[in-house]
Amino acid sequence: MSIVPTILCGGAGSRLWPLSREMHPKPFIRLADGQSLLQKAFLRGAMLPDVKEILTVTNRELLFKTEDDFREVNGNKIGTSYILEPFGRNTAAAIAAAALHIAKAHGEDAIMLVLAADHLITDQQAFADAVKQALALAKQGKLVTFGIHPAAPETGYGYIEAEGNHVVRFVEKPSLEKAQDYLASGRFLWNSGMFCFEAGIMLQALEQHCPEILAATAACIEASRLAEGKGFSQLDLDPDGFRNVPDNSIDYAVMEKSDRVAVIPCDIGWSDIGSWSALGELTNCDDQGNRIIGEALLHDVSDCYIRSDQRLVGAVGVDNLIIVDTPDALLVADKSRSQDVKQLYATLKAQGHEAHRLHLTVHRPWGTYTVLEENVQYKIKRIVVKPGASLSLQMHHHRSEHWIVVSGMAKVVNGDRELYVNTNESTYIPAGHKHRLENPGILDLVMIEVQSGQYLGEDDIVRFQDNYGRAG
Amino acid sequence: MSIVPTILCGGAGSRLWPLSREMHPKPFIRLADGQSLLQKAFLRGAMLPDVKEILTVTNRELLFKTEDDFREVNGNKIGTSYILEPFGRNTAAAIAAAALHIAKAHGEDAIMLVLAADHLITDQQAFADAVKQALALAKQGKLVTFGIHPAAPETGYGYIEAEGNHVVRFVEKPSLEKAQDYLASGRFLWNSGMFCFEAGIMLQALEQHCPEILAATAACIEASRLAEGKGFSQLDLDPDGFRNVPDNSIDYAVMEKSDRVAVIPCDIGWSDIGSWSALGELTNCDDQGNRIIGEALLHDVSDCYIRSDQRLVGAVGVDNLIIVDTPDALLVADKSRSQDVKQLYATLKAQGHEAHRLHLTVHRPWGTYTVLEENVQYKIKRIVVKPGASLSLQMHHHRSEHWIVVSGMAKVVNGDRELYVNTNESTYIPAGHKHRLENPGILDLVMIEVQSGQYLGEDDIVRFQDNYGRAG
Repeated sequence: MSIVPTILCGGAGSRLWPLSREMHPKPFIRLADGQSLLQKAFLRGAMLPDVKEILTVTNRELLFKTEDDFREVNGNKIGTSYILEPFGRNTAAAIAAAALHIAKAHGEDAIMLVLAADHLITDQQAFADAVKQALALAKQGKLVTFGIHPAAPETGYGYIEAEGNHVVRFVEKPSLEKAQDYLASGRFLWNSGMFCFEAGIMLQALEQHCPEILAATAACIEASRLAEGKGFSQLDLDPDGFRNVPDNSIDYAVMEKSDRVAVIPCDIGWSDIGSWSALGELTNCDDQGNRIIGEALLHDVSDCYIRSDQRLVGAVGVDNLIIVDTPDALLVADKSRSQDVKQLYATLKAQGHEAHRLHLTVHRPWGTYTVLEENVQYKIKRIVVKPGASLSLQMHHHRSEHWIVVSGMAKVVNGDRELYVNTNESTYIPAGHKHRLENPGILDLVMIEVQSGQYLGEDDIVRFQDNYGRAG
Repeated sequence: MSIVPTILCGGAGSRLWPLSREMHPKPFIRLADGQSLLQKAFLRGAMLPDVKEILTVTNRELLFKTEDDFREVNGNKIGTSYILEPFGRNTAAAIAAAALHIAKAHGEDAIMLVLAADHLITDQQAFADAVKQALALAKQGKLVTFGIHPAAPETGYGYIEAEGNHVVRFVEKPSLEKAQDYLASGRFLWNSGMFCFEAGIMLQALEQHCPEILAATAACIEASRLAEGKGFSQLDLDPDGFRNVPDNSIDYAVMEKSDRVAVIPCDIGWSDIGSWSALGELTNCDDQGNRIIGEALLHDVSDCYIRSDQRLVGAVGVDNLIIVDTPDALLVADKSRSQDVKQLYATLKAQGHEAHRLHLTVHRPWGTYTVLEENVQYKIKRIVVKPGASLSLQMHHHRSEHWIVVSGMAKVVNGDRELYVNTNESTYIPAGHKHRLENPGILDLVMIEVQSGQYLGEDDIVRFQDNYGRAG
């Protein structure tokens, strides 16, 4: 039997701003144990029996971050394949593409286990048991959903009314009153957004209930680029084709219409970590109910969640606040209003403010760079290059660069010269010089770059050759 | 007639942490008009008639910052003299030293106008009028205090019960009930901590009421170093001598005991800016009562004071908070608890935490340096050297330094070489090399320094020659 966990890794995570950004969404947030939600989703799938490959559907721009996350935890070398979206098109398009891809690669009877990349499941054993039940139903041709026994009258989730594994009906996000009724009745489950089915059965259901989505997705895949290797495949969805796929959720498009749907009621320690309140609860609290990550000094403070990577946080006489400090942006919110953080995010996005999109530390295929200081005259970056990685062979028209290696060893192309720059050595790249930075070693290369020139924008770059397909 | 405004510039400003630090106390805080409280105190004195010199009593370590502040505003080149304390010893010692110094320099009938460096007075004309009245009484041999008509039943101030210019009695910080009574009676004034008297009269009063303070201070001055020049003098109090001076306030030591005391009731727009609430009120508020300095994005926020130099502050659903963000420390406090910020400061001081003492930007006689990033392997600083200024000729045992000039021109001694380093040029100082940095130009020199080595502490420095008396 072939089971392919299919991780849907998308979403802005706008409610966890400023920790989450458009290019650093919720799946990449790390918990106290050092693992990201995405890594946890990967391991959740990888730890199941008979899993040899995990398929991830994600945004093209998040591929390198996703690969980095997987590399850290993929000890037993499970195959990783990717479907790369040029932009988000909701879950029906993502699942249709995944089903087409898996049916072709592994046959129509291959079983897909659709997992969200940004949920937390604390009881892996109960999860594995639920998956086992789901597999049995999937093999009978069912479209299986996972329903969570509700712990509170949440109004932010969809509900499933169930009798055993039978789905009576799906219900959209209810009013508080209805949610209380649902909770009291014992007949309703939270719709977790996880599914299990044979690829072929999903394709049949798409054909039956939303043939336009299936057809447009199939056409898009036809026009798309597929790269394959050993234990690796990467389907880069064609933007023009993908734009033709109707935007709909798999619940609307298929699940709520199909008579093949079944549900597995679960108690698996599930949370969608949908707000700072929810994320905060994962940190232990002190006697005053404060949950602290980082350095904080409190005077008469209670029930606060304080998270700071670098700065000291002093607080006096406050209660029930969320305080989240990042290098370029700070959030102070009343805990009861944590859902409204998404309003700030929406405003920042509408303003085109950089703080909605990027952190000061930006991930690149070769490593990261962090802007330490920036003004009209100069820009200072810390650049970390992974062992064996290389930046593109490039040139800038308007800026020259001073490179100082502070850890590791760099191999540098500087105009016509090729040289090694060791820790505590430096080199100077004049404007107009072709140059390249490479880490030939087995430890991270850390370099301080001081840029100087009349224009210091990231778009002053001409790439001649690039290991990651970004040249010309 | 010789009038010498005498500015007492001390205090930790612990209630305005994290903007104020031990080495950046309240007098140096800048208001919205760009002027520091200290500059305002200087101008307050300088704008009075017949003032040719201003004497400042301050901590030795604050001299260069004080001179920098005065230089910015001292357009008509009033003489500046200093009494430098090795540590704080309360107001009696400071005033005794000032009185001895002024009596010697200008005669016993020279009039001292004692001003606090960290108060705000918005009505300069009313202040000048009050000073005029005070001068008349001082010339009659009175020890004149300035009493502020109370605007509220403040419990943090001392009060003066007055009949006209006659002081009935001094009262210590009262209970709220008493303060309300005082306010209602119309007979009480706030004790502002400003005074006016002849130097000789103060010396007589010290001799009469606390001869041990006078004697110890006189002995200390005998043992101290005095440097004098044109329109300039600097008395560097001997630490051993100064330690022998009893610690007392001028109110306790003299004013409350003397029968020569008089009071000038004033309405001069006085505030001692004793808390973030008070400082916040100097910023205009929007329709929701929010007072913002810097970049902030608010959603359902009211009556907050938000101040951030660099970072974006997002706030949701909060009310009546003080949020103050600085490069290394953040404060979030309930506005009604703003007095308690000093508790945080006290804890940090007890811990020996750097955030109580210094900002990331540190002032030096030659300019400033700012730590941009620091870890075990390297440290990055932005160094700004004032035109004409020069760092000491120095050497480090354990670190080498990469210097990159990003603005202006540097004159550099590097081992046996002397060279000019222009904007966008760099030089490398190996460990063990004698070196010196100088700004020969007329614009600020801005340099990025990347330090690399096994030990990066500020104490790894050997100074061979220094323009500011810090060598050997």
